[in-house]
Amino acid sequence: MSDTREAMLALGRAARAAARRLALAPTARKNDALGAMAADIRKAAASIAAENAAETEAARDKGVKESFLDRLLLTAPRIEAMAQGLEDLAALPDPVGAVMSEWTRPNGMRIARVRVPIGVIGIVFESRPNVAADAGALCMKSGNAAILRGGSDGFRSATAIVGCLQRGLRAAGLPETAIQAVPTVDRDAVGMMLEGLGGAIDVLVPRGGKSLVARVQAEARVPVFSHLEGICHVYVDRAADLEMAKKIVLNAKMRRTGICGAAETLLVDRAGGATQLRPLIRTLVEAGCEVRGDAEAQAADARVRPATEEDWSTEYLAPIISLRVVNGLEQAMEHIARYGSQHTDAIVTEDAATAERFLREVDSAIVLRNASTQFADGGEFGFGAELGIATGKLHARGPIGLEQLTTFKYQVRGTGQTRP
Amino acid sequence: MSDTREAMLALGRAARAAARRLALAPTARKNDALGAMAADIRKAAASIAAENAAETEAARDKGVKESFLDRLLLTAPRIEAMAQGLEDLAALPDPVGAVMSEWTRPNGMRIARVRVPIGVIGIVFESRPNVAADAGALCMKSGNAAILRGGSDGFRSATAIVGCLQRGLRAAGLPETAIQAVPTVDRDAVGMMLEGLGGAIDVLVPRGGKSLVARVQAEARVPVFSHLEGICHVYVDRAADLEMAKKIVLNAKMRRTGICGAAETLLVDRAGGATQLRPLIRTLVEAGCEVRGDAEAQAADARVRPATEEDWSTEYLAPIISLRVVNGLEQAMEHIARYGSQHTDAIVTEDAATAERFLREVDSAIVLRNASTQFADGGEFGFGAELGIATGKLHARGPIGLEQLTTFKYQVRGTGQTRP
Repeated sequence: MSDTREAMLALGRAARAAARRLALAPTARKNDALGAMAADIRKAAASIAAENAAETEAARDKGVKESFLDRLLLTAPRIEAMAQGLEDLAALPDPVGAVMSEWTRPNGMRIARVRVPIGVIGIVFESRPNVAADAGALCMKSGNAAILRGGSDGFRSATAIVGCLQRGLRAAGLPETAIQAVPTVDRDAVGMMLEGLGGAIDVLVPRGGKSLVARVQAEARVPVFSHLEGICHVYVDRAADLEMAKKIVLNAKMRRTGICGAAETLLVDRAGGATQLRPLIRTLVEAGCEVRGDAEAQAADARVRPATEEDWSTEYLAPIISLRVVNGLEQAMEHIARYGSQHTDAIVTEDAATAERFLREVDSAIVLRNASTQFADGGEFGFGAELGIATGKLHARGPIGLEQLTTFKYQVRGTGQTRP
Repeated sequence: MSDTREAMLALGRAARAAARRLALAPTARKNDALGAMAADIRKAAASIAAENAAETEAARDKGVKESFLDRLLLTAPRIEAMAQGLEDLAALPDPVGAVMSEWTRPNGMRIARVRVPIGVIGIVFESRPNVAADAGALCMKSGNAAILRGGSDGFRSATAIVGCLQRGLRAAGLPETAIQAVPTVDRDAVGMMLEGLGGAIDVLVPRGGKSLVARVQAEARVPVFSHLEGICHVYVDRAADLEMAKKIVLNAKMRRTGICGAAETLLVDRAGGATQLRPLIRTLVEAGCEVRGDAEAQAADARVRPATEEDWSTEYLAPIISLRVVNGLEQAMEHIARYGSQHTDAIVTEDAATAERFLREVDSAIVLRNASTQFADGGEFGFGAELGIATGKLHARGPIGLEQLTTFKYQVRGTGQTRP
């Protein structure tokens, strides 16, 4: 057995043992740990920054992209934001132990469905070391142990952060193995995590770009909470309020173009085309957005470039939008079913019946009426924090908040009942 | 591409298309279909029985076990029970569309979490043709399409039953491809289902013995709802009421020994041993149960045979029980954590604090105080019907009823909100 293999299996066993203790930890103790983690991160801020500066420098020398460097970089305000994030998490309600439902059977048995932690969560992320703090802490607060494996370019930064988290756990009397970083950049370690680490990992959450998520989805032998991409649509119905539509489309596309909830395709109802199409295109183009449209959109505005078939299934994550004129709700929903990613889709309309059909029939994790797709976010939903967004249908769907990191069990309280 | 492969992929596409329609079907129409299915089964009872008689005869000639023949056999009362089961299902509430929770954000957006079907459920079962009726109908009522693959010895019986279900669907104006039987006994078909049938299957539910479930769990590339075995414990605490303990232990073990909720191990608190151990053993032995115990149990009653290490992890499914004397709650929970299957475990005690610790700390799908483990059943929980019991932690845990066959989506209703 290789050293990596042995070390990883030991890590898995330690996580499982820690998970059993953490599942029973009182809320106050978990919150104490979060407070101690935040304090330790503030105390270690200078050394984390120094470690990170060296790694950022080394990555720059390798010639990586500016956006990669930006994700890797930990400035003093970013380190403070991490600490603050831990304190914010302490203020959120603990989902563990909550009674989801409770009923009494005719024979007098009382049955309660009670939230319990899942167990051990494996998180695979890229060279973005602050993920270690927020992912590790979210798992801990929801009573789960976390195994964190970050990208190799941020390995030392992430390890330094996990050190702070572990000191916080210890200060609160919790097992420090409740949050562990994989101690090696050996790629075999990732493969082992995808296989579930000998039964030690209950669920995997990839955090990063499409290629990372695609690999995890393809190779994982344990359940995965993830989304591959967010091909989000805004459908502007004939009965839309034009001013509202312009505002929503602009926000959905341009507020931040790099997030998964950003709109990638605009569908405009042909019946409203005469009055709506040109103003919508103009709004986008004037905001600096490239519009790639079908023949009708091109005819409406010369600045529209031709869209190809590929555009309908492209997640630009950039100031580019595809635009198609459709024959009303039915064709809009067909388009979304065919090209969408079951992430987040919106309709703009003043017609309640049309809106309700859209909300009911579009099979996406999040469907909105008269609101921007950029609200696809755990914080905006009121969850306080999220580990990501899931487009799978099982267990977690949409923002993965604290509740989505729990499962449940049935507690049955009887007085001697036997089954007839 | 082989004929089987082509036929199976077409089946998967048809199921996916049917699932989209079924997801939007009104409750009344689904209930109409269930009524029509029941009527058709009654009408076809004689021909189903004849088909089944021929298959049972052929299986008998092959020399299969009596228990196998009993599962395969469809008598007139069993066919009537199938029809009745469909009518009972029609009377259950439809989970689809139920609002699980609803809240308003500070910006005025209303967010609702609404139940929706999962999509396509694959069911792999043994030569027990009545499973086709109850599994297919449960999936349909919860808005899912079903792909059914039963054992080859009951292939024609199951196909005849699925024919009735499909005529019922058609009579109610629903797509008959919402419930499909795999049209071949070719074993490659099962392999394709385990791979998810080209993305057509969202979740697999194996129904049958341990070897079937083990294969599905090991090879499936899609999520599985299942339990491999039910190694259920009854712990009789020092503070147990002895009469209640005897009644519960006897029922948990002997009511039906072949079901997954049957107790397989009895743990007796050493502190209560002097008064409890002998009567508990006597009760079991006199009811015809073989007791395999540790040294203390053997010393207490000469009829106790020695237990080996293997006994603690054996699911007998027979009138045999293993018995261990433990040092109170702590050691009982350690034993359950080590040897249990996270299915169903019970404590008998009059001490509320001890009971609550057991209910909280034992990590099983179902934990009971002062009630028999044989209550581990969707019907007994009030779910009306179940597709099985799951011991996995994600999505479904415990009895898999109609609600567990749904997922959810978020419907957001705004008035023009954009994200700042």
